Amino acid sequence: MANTMFLSSSVKVKPLLSSIAYTPEIPCQWYNLIADLPIKPPPPLNPKTFEPLQPQDLSHLFPDEIIKQEGTNERFIDIPEEVIDVYGLWRPTPLIRAKRLEKLLDTPARIYYKYEGGSPAGSHKPNTAVPQAWYNAQQGVKNVVTETGAGQWGSSLAFASSLFGLNCEVWQVRASYDQKPYRKLMMQTWGAKVHPSPSNITESGRRILEQDPSSPGSLGIAISEAVEMAAKNPDTKYCLGSVLNHVLLHQTVIGEECIKQMEAIGETPDVIIGCTGGGSNFGGLAFPFIREKLSGKINPVIRAVEPSACPSLTKGVYAYDYGDTAGMTPLMKMHTLGHDFVPDPIHAGGLRYHGMAPLISHVYELGFMEAIAIAQTECFAGAIQFARCEGIIPAPEPTHAIAAAIREALHCKETGESKVILMAMCGHGHFDLPAYDNYLKGNLVDLSFSEEKIKASIANIPQSSA
Amino acid sequence: MANTMFLSSSVKVKPLLSSIAYTPEIPCQWYNLIADLPIKPPPPLNPKTFEPLQPQDLSHLFPDEIIKQEGTNERFIDIPEEVIDVYGLWRPTPLIRAKRLEKLLDTPARIYYKYEGGSPAGSHKPNTAVPQAWYNAQQGVKNVVTETGAGQWGSSLAFASSLFGLNCEVWQVRASYDQKPYRKLMMQTWGAKVHPSPSNITESGRRILEQDPSSPGSLGIAISEAVEMAAKNPDTKYCLGSVLNHVLLHQTVIGEECIKQMEAIGETPDVIIGCTGGGSNFGGLAFPFIREKLSGKINPVIRAVEPSACPSLTKGVYAYDYGDTAGMTPLMKMHTLGHDFVPDPIHAGGLRYHGMAPLISHVYELGFMEAIAIAQTECFAGAIQFARCEGIIPAPEPTHAIAAAIREALHCKETGESKVILMAMCGHGHFDLPAYDNYLKGNLVDLSFSEEKIKASIANIPQSSA
Repeated sequence: MANTMFLSSSVKVKPLLSSIAYTPEIPCQWYNLIADLPIKPPPPLNPKTFEPLQPQDLSHLFPDEIIKQEGTNERFIDIPEEVIDVYGLWRPTPLIRAKRLEKLLDTPARIYYKYEGGSPAGSHKPNTAVPQAWYNAQQGVKNVVTETGAGQWGSSLAFASSLFGLNCEVWQVRASYDQKPYRKLMMQTWGAKVHPSPSNITESGRRILEQDPSSPGSLGIAISEAVEMAAKNPDTKYCLGSVLNHVLLHQTVIGEECIKQMEAIGETPDVIIGCTGGGSNFGGLAFPFIREKLSGKINPVIRAVEPSACPSLTKGVYAYDYGDTAGMTPLMKMHTLGHDFVPDPIHAGGLRYHGMAPLISHVYELGFMEAIAIAQTECFAGAIQFARCEGIIPAPEPTHAIAAAIREALHCKETGESKVILMAMCGHGHFDLPAYDNYLKGNLVDLSFSEEKIKASIANIPQSSA
Repeated sequence: MANTMFLSSSVKVKPLLSSIAYTPEIPCQWYNLIADLPIKPPPPLNPKTFEPLQPQDLSHLFPDEIIKQEGTNERFIDIPEEVIDVYGLWRPTPLIRAKRLEKLLDTPARIYYKYEGGSPAGSHKPNTAVPQAWYNAQQGVKNVVTETGAGQWGSSLAFASSLFGLNCEVWQVRASYDQKPYRKLMMQTWGAKVHPSPSNITESGRRILEQDPSSPGSLGIAISEAVEMAAKNPDTKYCLGSVLNHVLLHQTVIGEECIKQMEAIGETPDVIIGCTGGGSNFGGLAFPFIREKLSGKINPVIRAVEPSACPSLTKGVYAYDYGDTAGMTPLMKMHTLGHDFVPDPIHAGGLRYHGMAPLISHVYELGFMEAIAIAQTECFAGAIQFARCEGIIPAPEPTHAIAAAIREALHCKETGESKVILMAMCGHGHFDLPAYDNYLKGNLVDLSFSEEKIKASIANIPQSSA
């Protein structure tokens, strides 16, 4: 029965248009930018001794392979066969030319976007959730725990865990747990247990609940709860969705694929744009292009876009700071607004992080990239234009990349330059439609930006380690 | 600036695994099964004269090209360049082997699914919404109107209309409008106007509201409202999302692509399975394979799966009946439960239609396919297994195909046959997560099936035209 070919050549087919580039290949290696940097990034520090962190300091949290990847100087890391197999569910992701948007803007620029929203969880996050789950399963770990805010990361880890038979528990910030039930239901559909944080399961949670039984929670509290669970249970490990080197490493599959796709259509990017929260989406697309830039083959401008309400790169300081609010994580040298900075409740929940990935911070310091901040009304205005021209409704996070790309395209209209603009479109907005409703009803405002607030939280950064 | 190639051959890439078949091509023709049928299907009838419908009877509703396609005997219809360009946003869609599900079921069968959920609106519906919007825009139509229940079709037409500068108005059944706000927000994000139906904008709506100011509405009422708007306004046309020949024609892009993909991996389907509501998803995948079957090249079993709560093929009669509840549409010969049959409120809203596409009904009568009905608890049980193995959370409609594929795979386990099972996975369940919640909490029940109810509604079918 099998392998009997049947030929039906009667219907005509045509090659894909040059504006949409698929390659019939998936990268089988991740790229580690550290290997090519002229100066290595400063090491993370043990929060107790302020000495450089040792691999064993992390062994209660992560499996060995992840710890190795976190500190490696190797240039290329092979992607496990089983991970590539799962990537194939949504990879290669399309690189699409936004021709209708170009026409609307009447720009000579050519605008391309690399779209990651086709993954089962709807964003780029599964690119790292899948290998993290895989390495844990390989090491015999039974349970993985993590925190999540709006739920993009939690749902990605729930998805990945279900494929490899891992139990997954997620501490979700209570405000989101109550207000945005769909992501929680998604995690449960994949078999994960979801706890509102603060919970009475952990000491950290109980301590908060004693003080405030109706606490809405925060990402900092949720991290503490998940980390506590991993520390207490030997068959339980912790997973993180951004910021760390191994997470950015896994995301380079985006940029590697994109390089091949741009080659296939004979284009070279002049400007590469991505939104930055923790930095994994931006780094994933940009790092392979930075390699090409360092080698002198191309010379694109590489531009991070952060929300005005949480401007770690453009308004933060470059200093050693904690990754969480409570100060339980290692100290990392990064651009930070201070670990107790609480950003205003903008819709782009994934960009509300006080610090920037240490590796992106380092690359920024080296001058290989630039950064700007944009307020959310401009982002949603651009997103509506994009959705109505291009069809895809973006998540609130990549609307920042869209707004910056539109700025660049309109600048090209003035100067007459036909630049090639490439942007990272990291996820869809299916669960963020109330934010669009808000914008369309004129209820969206740019939240007041307070220099005082930033000054106050920056003052709390542990100076001893700077 | 442009076309400067840069070569980055340092990262290894590998061809896609044989279990995931992408072809770098999109079909540029739709396939019309009518051309190959040994007996042509019975014509639709004018509801006033009971005479075969003439093209001009439809000109107040549809643009000329759509009317032509509705009645054509041509075998292949060229897809307009601009439509192919938009298809490229999500086409070719992946054909994926469900290897982890096979392993879970411990079956010798090979299970493949063709996934249409990657379209901007999240289902197969844009395959026809885009050409319908395009032909209307080409003819100078300014506004398109339609009805929608849960919102899959309305959001697809809103998406397509936004790309071609058409105004789009959707009458959404009030119960869904109130209970499922996300699809409505999606339509509004694409710029559509959405009215709860019954509305006081139309005579049909006002008539209902006079009798019952708090009417929850029905698809039948919403159709009446949209058709009335099109009939009254010369620059407004009506669009339908399933049932009619031209809709099934547009959906054949699924099956044509799938044939090429199966050829590329050297597989031949033994069983082809799709869910049926109006029939467009099923016909889209199955019709090109039926052509191959008629030509004698392959001989797959072709199996429609309908919900036990709305079993038009398995429990209906084959007779001329109206397409809407109020009896305003042409009479079509189809398998029907009677135009005033009101199915129980199962989660698969897209399968709650009293009739089956006339072309599918005819093919069923000719014996080229078979049909079964499955109750929703079995469907959701299968969907949970699928989601946790394969990652994709299916819409409630394709859970019927999954349940049937699992039955077939388990049968193969008993017999030892290594059949190739191909199923139509027509959309994701991002907006249907409360249904999964219901199932996981044990609150989902199989609604009681009433032979009496079907008998009563079948009795109301207009016998004069049978």
